[in-house]
Amino acid sequence: MRYFIYLSYDGTDYHGWQRQPNGISIQEVLEDTLTLVLRNKTEIVGAGRTDAGVHAKTMVAHFDTAEPIAVNLQARLNNLLPKDIAIQDIKLVRDDAHARFDAIKRQYQYFFTTKKSPFNYRFATRIPTNIDFGKMNEAAQLLLTHDDFASFCKVHTDVKTTLCKVTEAKFIQKSDTDWIFQIEADRFLRNMVRAIVGTLLEVGTGKLSISDFQQIIEAKNRCAARQSAPPQGLFLTQIEYPLEVFLSQE
Amino acid sequence: MRYFIYLSYDGTDYHGWQRQPNGISIQEVLEDTLTLVLRNKTEIVGAGRTDAGVHAKTMVAHFDTAEPIAVNLQARLNNLLPKDIAIQDIKLVRDDAHARFDAIKRQYQYFFTTKKSPFNYRFATRIPTNIDFGKMNEAAQLLLTHDDFASFCKVHTDVKTTLCKVTEAKFIQKSDTDWIFQIEADRFLRNMVRAIVGTLLEVGTGKLSISDFQQIIEAKNRCAARQSAPPQGLFLTQIEYPLEVFLSQE
Repeated sequence: MRYFIYLSYDGTDYHGWQRQPNGISIQEVLEDTLTLVLRNKTEIVGAGRTDAGVHAKTMVAHFDTAEPIAVNLQARLNNLLPKDIAIQDIKLVRDDAHARFDAIKRQYQYFFTTKKSPFNYRFATRIPTNIDFGKMNEAAQLLLTHDDFASFCKVHTDVKTTLCKVTEAKFIQKSDTDWIFQIEADRFLRNMVRAIVGTLLEVGTGKLSISDFQQIIEAKNRCAARQSAPPQGLFLTQIEYPLEVFLSQE
Repeated sequence: MRYFIYLSYDGTDYHGWQRQPNGISIQEVLEDTLTLVLRNKTEIVGAGRTDAGVHAKTMVAHFDTAEPIAVNLQARLNNLLPKDIAIQDIKLVRDDAHARFDAIKRQYQYFFTTKKSPFNYRFATRIPTNIDFGKMNEAAQLLLTHDDFASFCKVHTDVKTTLCKVTEAKFIQKSDTDWIFQIEADRFLRNMVRAIVGTLLEVGTGKLSISDFQQIIEAKNRCAARQSAPPQGLFLTQIEYPLEVFLSQE
């Protein structure tokens, strides 16, 4: 049987999603815990990867079992997993469903605040009060009318294409001091959201004009974009699949 | 000149408010930072103390200066202070105003959740789903009709009286999975809120009846109460002063 596991995590203390030799990753902790509870070596395939320090409100991964899972699997995993990783749901899917290839839409949110707060410094990036969000929103709209995002892709990755269909990209004001940048696309390149946000912030501070931003997109060259925004404000928030991948658990 | 400084902090990594030899405290960090910025040895007197791991949305302390403070003092302090301490305001007060003795009301909130969340494990205590909040609210009302809280006071403190006037004590549901216990009084004894919450939770799980809870209050003996609730759900949220203590800064 194949299952989709939905989880959220605080990425602060991890070296990103992907298992790697140099540090602890979300994937490693989750695979080890599943292996322990299911008493069977279990591997998971994630819908994507998040960089070190990036969080997820919703990440999805698939794993296989020989037997149907116990009804209390989610509770048992949550008891064993560290405080900064929580399982939200586990859903039965078709045997050929794939957490990464079947995803049709992904959403990220990047949190900004102009106010120092001891309660969300892990979850928002502080910005000056004189940022021009109107101008940043104007620039962000250009992301909807372009489809090659090579300028915002980490170099030296093995990605075959840098084409993405961005369906939403906007800054939303949440309070006098708090803003969210929300972006949706069919897929994202590595480092893409942070590179876009870092470059948009230079539009907001007046260092770049809106037409500079357009030229950066059209350069299709990572050297064109500006410094990536820091990871701690970024959350993977949604991953959508076609309904057909899910099976009834009755 | 005397000032009231309003601050908030994540208490997780501190040994409480009060300066002490065995570990880093909020008071020590704030005094050292004020001393550095004001270029003058500065001591602060807090409105009370919070235990290790307890947070504050609002804590107040007073300090004295020879000269009026610079308008950018709050911003400079926030730049120098660690991420988990933030200054909210600094107000000029009468020379004889006292952060502790002049406070007329204090409010604490204790946060509970039935859901594992990677984003608030520092700020809420997880509880089972079968807690009876109705019964806990009934018991909490008994706190309003009693005035001696010796049963909920840490032993071996030098406190002269265990009398407090509790003006509010109730559980408030915030969502399907989240609750707050909110309590207001003219003063609180050491450990009082956590001892009350820990004992009320035993009413909520059925280990104690409401009349057991009443007997515990009336015993006026700390050995009567149950185990204190853990610190991480507790926030000092408000401290009120009479308007007369404040001076116009013009």
